[in-house]
Amino acid sequence: MKIVVNQKNFKKALGVVEKVVAKNTTLPILSNILFKTENGRLRLSATNLEIGINYIIGAKIEEVGQVAVPARIISDFTGNISDEKITLTVKNNVLSINSEHYKTQILGFDAKDFPIIPKIKSKPLAAIPVKALKNSLMSVIESVALSEARPELAGIFVSFDNDRVVFASTDSFRLTEKQFDFKNAAKQSFIIPRNTVLELARIAGELDGDVIVNLGDNQISFSNDDFEMVSRLVDGAYPDYRKVIPDRFVSKVLINKNELEKNIRLAGLFSSNISDVKIQCAESKTSITAKNSDKGEIETGIVSTLKNQPFEISLNYHYILDGLKIMDTEEVVLEYTGQGSPLVLRPSNNRKDLVYLIMPLRK
Amino acid sequence: MKIVVNQKNFKKALGVVEKVVAKNTTLPILSNILFKTENGRLRLSATNLEIGINYIIGAKIEEVGQVAVPARIISDFTGNISDEKITLTVKNNVLSINSEHYKTQILGFDAKDFPIIPKIKSKPLAAIPVKALKNSLMSVIESVALSEARPELAGIFVSFDNDRVVFASTDSFRLTEKQFDFKNAAKQSFIIPRNTVLELARIAGELDGDVIVNLGDNQISFSNDDFEMVSRLVDGAYPDYRKVIPDRFVSKVLINKNELEKNIRLAGLFSSNISDVKIQCAESKTSITAKNSDKGEIETGIVSTLKNQPFEISLNYHYILDGLKIMDTEEVVLEYTGQGSPLVLRPSNNRKDLVYLIMPLRK
Repeated sequence: MKIVVNQKNFKKALGVVEKVVAKNTTLPILSNILFKTENGRLRLSATNLEIGINYIIGAKIEEVGQVAVPARIISDFTGNISDEKITLTVKNNVLSINSEHYKTQILGFDAKDFPIIPKIKSKPLAAIPVKALKNSLMSVIESVALSEARPELAGIFVSFDNDRVVFASTDSFRLTEKQFDFKNAAKQSFIIPRNTVLELARIAGELDGDVIVNLGDNQISFSNDDFEMVSRLVDGAYPDYRKVIPDRFVSKVLINKNELEKNIRLAGLFSSNISDVKIQCAESKTSITAKNSDKGEIETGIVSTLKNQPFEISLNYHYILDGLKIMDTEEVVLEYTGQGSPLVLRPSNNRKDLVYLIMPLRK
Repeated sequence: MKIVVNQKNFKKALGVVEKVVAKNTTLPILSNILFKTENGRLRLSATNLEIGINYIIGAKIEEVGQVAVPARIISDFTGNISDEKITLTVKNNVLSINSEHYKTQILGFDAKDFPIIPKIKSKPLAAIPVKALKNSLMSVIESVALSEARPELAGIFVSFDNDRVVFASTDSFRLTEKQFDFKNAAKQSFIIPRNTVLELARIAGELDGDVIVNLGDNQISFSNDDFEMVSRLVDGAYPDYRKVIPDRFVSKVLINKNELEKNIRLAGLFSSNISDVKIQCAESKTSITAKNSDKGEIETGIVSTLKNQPFEISLNYHYILDGLKIMDTEEVVLEYTGQGSPLVLRPSNNRKDLVYLIMPLRK
C-alpha cells in the first residue's frame, strides 16, 4: 500500500473510528484500526465486537493494500503534527508515515486477522435527518437504565410509526419520551443499546444531512456516503411504557426553568438521602425546601403560575435536574397527577413532542 | 454573631481558605472553616495542621461572634447564589445565611474546638513582590521530589542572600534553580514543603503588591493586610546542589523552544522506557529519534545552531518537557557538558536567573 492523505481529513477520520476501539481487550487485534484502500479511497475501520465503524476518506492511491495498526499511537501522532500531506506506506505490516518534518514506522498486524464488520443487506428502513436523530437520542439517554438487570431497559426504544418516530427510555425511576414527525411506509420498533446511542450521538455531531437506517437480524446500521456504524440490537420486548404516562393532571404549575434548576441544585446541597427535596406549589409561588439533620436546612422561593389546587411533592433532586436539562423552553410545566402518581415535566408551549416523568417514591 | 457581607467578597474569601481544609481527616473539626468577627471585619480561617490560612474581609458587624461551619456546604451554597448581600447570623452554633432569595441554616460547631493557627512573633524577614515569588515558586516546583524518602528534597530550598533570593529544587534526576535580585539585610535559608508551595502559588495569583515573610521556629508565614498563611518548614539541611551545576560546557546548541517541545513529545509516543528518546545535535540541525521494538520508530529534525562539536544524548523525555515548560524565551540553549555529566537547559538570552539540569542516566 502507498497512499497520500490530507492530515486534517485523516485526523478527523481517526477521531471518528478510534472511540470504538476496544480497550483492555483480551483480543489484541481489537485495539487496532484497519486501514484499507477501497475504490480509490481509504477506509478506516474499528470495532469492539458490539459496535463496528467504517469511515472513508479521499486519498491519492499509488498502490492498494491494507494493514491494522494500534489506534493509540497513530491517533496521538497524527493529532499532534501539522504537516498538510501525509504519505502512508505499508511493507510487511509496518506502516511508514512520512511527512515534511517527520518519518515514522509503526508496527502493525496482518489485516486478515482483523474481524469483519458485518454488512446488513436488507432494504433501508428510512433516511432520517441526522440533527433530529441526535437531538432525540440525547433527550432520552439520561433515563436509560445503567444496570443490565433488565437488559431491555438498558437501551433506547425506537418506534417508527407511519407519521412519526418515537424515542423512549426508562430506568423505572423516570421515563422520557421524545418524538418527531416523520412520514415512513414501514412500521418497525427496536431497542438500541446505550453505548451505541452514545457513540452514534457523538458521531452524528460530525455529520450533515440524512443517515440511512438498515435493520438486520438483531443488528442495525446507520450510514451515509462516508460513514457506516453497525451495532447489535437489544434482544427482548420493551415494556408498554405508554400506559404509565398520565393522561390527565390534578394541578399544574408554569415556572422559569433556570430559576427552578438553580434552586433545586441549592436545595440539593442540603439533602442527605435521595428524597428530601420538597417542592411546594402555592398560587403564585413555588417553594423549594430541604432539611438534613446533619447539615442544616434551606428554603427558597420562585414566582410561578398555578392552575387548580396547591400541591407538594418530595423528590430525588437529581431526577428533576436531569429532566430540566432536556427541556428547551424558557419556562416549563410541572404536572401533579396525584399522590402515588408520577410528576410530569413538559416544555411550556403545549408541545407534545417531549415528556419526562418522575415516578412516585415508594415509602 | 450577626453580620452582613458582600457575596463576591465572601465567595472569594471562601475560595482562598477552603483549599487547605483537611479532607478525609480523623479530626472532623478540620473540615470546617472558622468564621470570627475581628476588629470590625470578618476573619475566615482553615487549617490542615500543616498549613493554616487566615483571610479577612470587610463586613457590617451588628453583633460580634464566631462559629465553625463545614467548608463544603457553605462554599457550594455561596458559590451558586447571586444575591448581592448576605446576612450571617449565629445562634447556638447554627449559622443562618439569609439573602434576598434564600434562607438557610447550616449546622456548625463551637469555635472553641477549632485549632489555633499559630502567630509568628519574630521580626519580618522581608517583604517580597508577590508576582516574583509566584513565578519563582512555579519555576522550580516541577523538580521537587514527590517521595518523602529524603524529606529535605520534598520541598523548595529558598535562600535570601544580601542581594538576591534563590529558589532551588531537585529530585536527584533533575535540578532547577531560579533567582531574582532582591536587597535584604538578613541572610537566611529554609525549605518550604511542596504542598505549602502549591497553596502559596495558587493564592499568590489572587494577591497584589508585596507579601511579608516571617520566620519562626521551624515555621514560616506569608502575609499582607488581608491574608496570612502559616506553614511548617522542612527539617534538615539542603544538599549543596550548587556543586552539581557545571560551570563549563563542551558544546551548546540554540534551538526553537516550541519546535523542540513538539518534536520531543512526538518522539515520546515511540518511547517504551524512560531513556529511549535520543537528541543528536549536528551543525545546523537537531534530530530527535526514538525506537521501540513493540511500537515502531520516529525521526524528526529541527533547524538549530551548534557551537563546538556535534553531540548526542539519550534522555527521559518527560524531564526535558518539564524543563522546556518553565523556559520563557522563544529559543533555548542546551549545553552538553560531557558523557556522564548533566545536560543543562537555559533561556536563550544569556540570562543567569534560571537553569534546569537533567542528570545523566546511569546505565
